[in-house]
Amino acid sequence: MKSGLNFLVAAKRCEIAELQQLALTSALVNVTGRLIHGLQRERGLSNLLIGSQGARFADMRLQQIEECRQIEGELRACFDELDTASARVGHGARLFSRIAYVLQGLDALEALRERVAALQWNTRQATDAYVRLVTGLLAVVFEAADSASDPEISRLLVARFNFMQGKEFAGQERAAGSALFASGRADTSEQQRLLHLIESQERCLQVFGEFAHPDVAEVWAASQANTPLAELERMRRVLCTAAHGAPLNVQLSQTWFDCCSRRIDSMKVVEDRLALDLQHTCENKTIAAQAELASYEALRAVPPQKADAMSFFHDATATASPSGFGAGAQGYGLQLERSILELVQEQARRLQTMGEELDTVRSSLNERKTIERAKGLLMAHRQLSEEEAHKTMRQMAMNQNRRLIEVAEAVLAMADVLPARPR
Amino acid sequence: MKSGLNFLVAAKRCEIAELQQLALTSALVNVTGRLIHGLQRERGLSNLLIGSQGARFADMRLQQIEECRQIEGELRACFDELDTASARVGHGARLFSRIAYVLQGLDALEALRERVAALQWNTRQATDAYVRLVTGLLAVVFEAADSASDPEISRLLVARFNFMQGKEFAGQERAAGSALFASGRADTSEQQRLLHLIESQERCLQVFGEFAHPDVAEVWAASQANTPLAELERMRRVLCTAAHGAPLNVQLSQTWFDCCSRRIDSMKVVEDRLALDLQHTCENKTIAAQAELASYEALRAVPPQKADAMSFFHDATATASPSGFGAGAQGYGLQLERSILELVQEQARRLQTMGEELDTVRSSLNERKTIERAKGLLMAHRQLSEEEAHKTMRQMAMNQNRRLIEVAEAVLAMADVLPARPR
Repeated sequence: MKSGLNFLVAAKRCEIAELQQLALTSALVNVTGRLIHGLQRERGLSNLLIGSQGARFADMRLQQIEECRQIEGELRACFDELDTASARVGHGARLFSRIAYVLQGLDALEALRERVAALQWNTRQATDAYVRLVTGLLAVVFEAADSASDPEISRLLVARFNFMQGKEFAGQERAAGSALFASGRADTSEQQRLLHLIESQERCLQVFGEFAHPDVAEVWAASQANTPLAELERMRRVLCTAAHGAPLNVQLSQTWFDCCSRRIDSMKVVEDRLALDLQHTCENKTIAAQAELASYEALRAVPPQKADAMSFFHDATATASPSGFGAGAQGYGLQLERSILELVQEQARRLQTMGEELDTVRSSLNERKTIERAKGLLMAHRQLSEEEAHKTMRQMAMNQNRRLIEVAEAVLAMADVLPARPR
Repeated sequence: MKSGLNFLVAAKRCEIAELQQLALTSALVNVTGRLIHGLQRERGLSNLLIGSQGARFADMRLQQIEECRQIEGELRACFDELDTASARVGHGARLFSRIAYVLQGLDALEALRERVAALQWNTRQATDAYVRLVTGLLAVVFEAADSASDPEISRLLVARFNFMQGKEFAGQERAAGSALFASGRADTSEQQRLLHLIESQERCLQVFGEFAHPDVAEVWAASQANTPLAELERMRRVLCTAAHGAPLNVQLSQTWFDCCSRRIDSMKVVEDRLALDLQHTCENKTIAAQAELASYEALRAVPPQKADAMSFFHDATATASPSGFGAGAQGYGLQLERSILELVQEQARRLQTMGEELDTVRSSLNERKTIERAKGLLMAHRQLSEEEAHKTMRQMAMNQNRRLIEVAEAVLAMADVLPARPR
């Protein structure tokens, strides 16, 4: 018959299994992050190629495509290694579903490249296609962030996801700016889009700052000091303030691309650091949990004593009182039985506290989901672009002196009374 | 190399595994519910025995103990059958930890019975001991409610948990009232406790009403019509309004016990109905998921076509447009490839929607946790009883015209500035 000790051990084993699965998922996320980084660069170069009517950047782009193909191969190998045969409970369904989506996108990647090479698509179409694929890859990262049940690890994952999402906005900014400079003409709607991307990226980096370890935040601050921020801001100003149709210096497209790339490459360094921290935290927690497991299992060798079973019915504070010091041979039994109860209570309290902390961390992920849902609702029902929907909500928040999340909740609460989407 | 279809299938398998695990956990909860029911009765009879100084109810109590021992055996067998060897990710750690705690309590049960038989404890001490064990058992039920990732099942589990918790408050009311009548004297603090138990029980039943299927709510309404509610309310009035120290009719202890028992037994019927509904819902969902899985796997037999991979980059609305109807032999391939993408998108959307609905359902569980934490904080820092802490928070809510959950959140936000717990 299984005892409380058996289940104490089983609970600890579950914690360890979860940490190990997290380490595996995390390794998958690392490769995903590298592919995102490569595709971001490929997107930027594709835009430069299209913007220059195929006159420039062809070689650089082909080189980048080769690199991406290699990482894609690695990622597919990671997917192949995933244990899809033994169905996982927990977040398995959502993670696998995201991967299924990503694989559909990867299958279409070569066809996309052909369209770009043949200049069949304009920069906006090409950008949108790459954005869709990268969004799918980021959704894999998001599921990983959502699956941790240890709040400390969850914090790291939230910081990492937001940093990667912020980096993607920076990548979209690079692509949009490259295309704009390369086209040689300012365009109001593209300028609006750039402003939206800059703002979105700042919002993500702010969440990253809230959740990251202070030393990683320092690495990020230090790396920013080494990037040509002033130059970037100057070009941002030129791009965003030129009157619609005014000429832009085509030569600046390369300068803009290089400047953005230096910043984005420095972001990749921070991302790698976040990945490393996560790996170490998983490892350390696994080691600690395994040590605890060993200490529990050592108790199994001792014959069970029920002398002091009644301590179950006393207060936790009472059991910690000096009355716990039994005398002589009987005393050992008392101590042992009490200590198993105490271990059980301690484990329950710890899991409880972890659950509460996790709810807090996850609420920030949920806020993001809520804002995205509200935005999607506005886009569908008011026929707005993403930028317009975001701007509308931000305006409502400012007018009503409320937080963006509160406005989003209000928008969703209105969902039932909004008219059906016109066909 | 694994395809999108492989992961579509894997995600569906995970969903099925989750449903099957839920069905197993649910069966465990059924036996837990029966043991709780038995222990509630044993608690009431123990109080009657102590209240009558051992003069009455001894046989009935022994009979009840025998029944409880049998169900305890069944529950332990269920625990033994749980797969603790292969560590489960998800809510495994918390469930096992709760079970470890319950087993410590069950190990102490015989010792508790001896104290009661020897009249070494007063009714309050005996009640508290049984309450502690039942609370541990309810925590197992709570973890089951918290572990579902299907919102419809989660709703059923939330309804069930709240109903069981409400029934436990009804059981505590029976025990407290039995003891009070049997003692023959009104007592202010016990009267306060009774009022608190009545209120807590009504709150739980309200949540049950919000989450239960309308037809189960009807079963509950119908069963209430058959219980002696008027008689119960009359005795409640007698119990709660008598002046401190005033005599109570000792003979009413049996009447009170029987009247409460009829109500509680009718609650068990509703609880069983909830369990049955849950089982059917799990079964139906499993069948539906398995049919979907079979339809996915049938697609595997068809050779993959990549002709229309590019549809990944078109809008979901665009792919649903008539352009999807390809011509001739090529058409089949187009349709097939598109349909896998559509299946993948549909699955992602469904999991997304389920996740959102689940967040909503779980927020009601989180509210409960928040209120309990705030109560615990007040108890620790202001040296209040549970009833006093609850009353304080309710008073604050009324004074400030806010919901109880808002007051609880405010109390927790104050946690850092409250003085450390005095030793």
